[in-house]
Amino acid sequence: MIDNFYAIVPAGGAGTRLWPISRSAAPKFLLDLTGQGETLLQATVSRLSPLAKGVVVVTGAAHEAACRAQLPQLPASDFLAEPSPRNSMAAIGLAAAVLQQRHGVVVVGSFAADHIIHGEAAFTNAVTEAVKVAEAGYVATIGIAASRPATGFGYIEAGGPLGVEGAPHAAQVTGFTEKPNAATAAKYVNAGNYRWNGGMFVARTDVLLDHLARQRPELAAGLRRIAADWDTDRRAATMAEVWPSLERIAIDHAIAEPVAAAGGVAMVPAGFAWHDIGDFATLASVLPDIDDDGNKQVGTGDVIRIDASGTLVIPDGGPGRVVALLGVDDIVVVDTPGALLVTTRSRAQQVGDVVKAARDLGLDDVV
Amino acid sequence: MIDNFYAIVPAGGAGTRLWPISRSAAPKFLLDLTGQGETLLQATVSRLSPLAKGVVVVTGAAHEAACRAQLPQLPASDFLAEPSPRNSMAAIGLAAAVLQQRHGVVVVGSFAADHIIHGEAAFTNAVTEAVKVAEAGYVATIGIAASRPATGFGYIEAGGPLGVEGAPHAAQVTGFTEKPNAATAAKYVNAGNYRWNGGMFVARTDVLLDHLARQRPELAAGLRRIAADWDTDRRAATMAEVWPSLERIAIDHAIAEPVAAAGGVAMVPAGFAWHDIGDFATLASVLPDIDDDGNKQVGTGDVIRIDASGTLVIPDGGPGRVVALLGVDDIVVVDTPGALLVTTRSRAQQVGDVVKAARDLGLDDVV
Repeated sequence: MIDNFYAIVPAGGAGTRLWPISRSAAPKFLLDLTGQGETLLQATVSRLSPLAKGVVVVTGAAHEAACRAQLPQLPASDFLAEPSPRNSMAAIGLAAAVLQQRHGVVVVGSFAADHIIHGEAAFTNAVTEAVKVAEAGYVATIGIAASRPATGFGYIEAGGPLGVEGAPHAAQVTGFTEKPNAATAAKYVNAGNYRWNGGMFVARTDVLLDHLARQRPELAAGLRRIAADWDTDRRAATMAEVWPSLERIAIDHAIAEPVAAAGGVAMVPAGFAWHDIGDFATLASVLPDIDDDGNKQVGTGDVIRIDASGTLVIPDGGPGRVVALLGVDDIVVVDTPGALLVTTRSRAQQVGDVVKAARDLGLDDVV
Repeated sequence: MIDNFYAIVPAGGAGTRLWPISRSAAPKFLLDLTGQGETLLQATVSRLSPLAKGVVVVTGAAHEAACRAQLPQLPASDFLAEPSPRNSMAAIGLAAAVLQQRHGVVVVGSFAADHIIHGEAAFTNAVTEAVKVAEAGYVATIGIAASRPATGFGYIEAGGPLGVEGAPHAAQVTGFTEKPNAATAAKYVNAGNYRWNGGMFVARTDVLLDHLARQRPELAAGLRRIAADWDTDRRAATMAEVWPSLERIAIDHAIAEPVAAAGGVAMVPAGFAWHDIGDFATLASVLPDIDDDGNKQVGTGDVIRIDASGTLVIPDGGPGRVVALLGVDDIVVVDTPGALLVTTRSRAQQVGDVVKAARDLGLDDVV
């Protein structure tokens, strides 16, 4: 366990492109996306629990009960429910303010509930270095090796070494970028000093909240008011009054970018494998082949394949159900009790259009 | 109604290539394959009832209850149940013998329970001519216009006109052929005097049974014994004794081919459209397009299509279920409560391999 360190897990986002396994009632973080026996949320908390004195889950009120049910080992007070979504700054800022209220100044690290990470030791090393950097007063982030010119992630630009004791790999951050186009992404990857922004931020609570007070004073004041009343009988009244007025802004824009420009952000390079499973093509890429034809499957449902290659089947339609593929390549078949999707790996990014079409048709039961 | 005419409907065959909508427990003839509101069996009987004094359905014992339930308008005595399959000669011969036992010599016409026919007036005209030909002592068949060099059907070779009064279009039949290869089929279609054999035979019961007695004396004797006891309390005992010993042979081989060679078969050309739906590609070819992209659908289930063309969807997975296709062409999706098939129109003929694989895997519930 890392001394004085608490983990924050923002559990939000619908995962529309993973429909129909991911739905508004069952978002991505509540799912065992790769069939490993744990949901993404459970795996995230399992990964953090050995490192942190506590893990706080921030989620929408609609998903609080499901989160609690999946994490019976966490005390009820470590679930913070948002009445409405206010983006990542409000979620992380609320948790940081509540933790500081409860424990005084501590180091917090924020880790999304729906990312896949392999390599526990490397993860521990990176977080340990990031905490050292945070204790020195920086906002620390963990940079993911940019293994391809991805256009779906933001990038972190690293400068020179930081020179903080106990964080030998840490570097100054000279800037954050939005998701780039393909040419810019290729330039970043070739340059060598860019890493993917996995949204992992580690900071002392006082440093984080002071930055916020300078950058977004009203948001900071609102969060301090809520945190002061959180563990009292005034929580509901204060939340009802203050929460709806909070600015919706990502932590990247509210803190990471302006503070980096002022030299206050540092990066620890990740030695672990990291995946943000945004669609079925990405999911297929992280699953092992189940046969010599490059077919993939999540779960143990009965699937018959004849002359099928490069397919992904998620056979989740119910007990005893059989899925059969005959003479199809690179097809994605996602079978759930209420809805069936048939697409291809190359079109997987457009699954959100299907969800939109279903909404337009009034098929609200399945979205 | 045609005087003294009775229809025989052999209701057999599994339709393995139409899995999973067609299964051993729900063979093709019991299904509303095209979504028209009637099963193929119901449509066959509806087509024949106005023409015939009676319609006799011959089916396997396992399907008798389902046939009766679908045809409540027929008297119970008009369902003849076979304890085991003995091919078409035994089925049709049994019905002919029972009808002659009940009504004396009549004209019978045999029409498969799972063919699709469009054009009621032309059908009536063809059957009426065939009955005239039958009354003159011929075994009559109805020849389907060979609209393409199909290799999935047998062919009838027509000779000169017959010259029977009331049957101006009837021709002598000079031979029957088995399913030809592609080159032979092309030769037949080019020749102009070949028609498809749709398995429709019309004959006087005495003519039919006398031919059978000459060609297959033991089979004929067995059927006469069964028919004599059919409407008595000896039916079960006689069936148990005789039926299992009956020769398994198709009417084409037992009667049509040898009798044609002797000049005893005539053909009336069909003016109606006829389809034997053997697989999903054939089914797709008889369904109307539901949009400008050539997509097809059976039934009214919710289907979302985005950038999909030439597809066939049978959305029969249950109420409220949604099927979504994204970026797929010529795909066949057959969704049923217990099983899902995804294939292509060009591979539809191999669906039988899927059923075989399911059996090999012990998935007997879905085959």
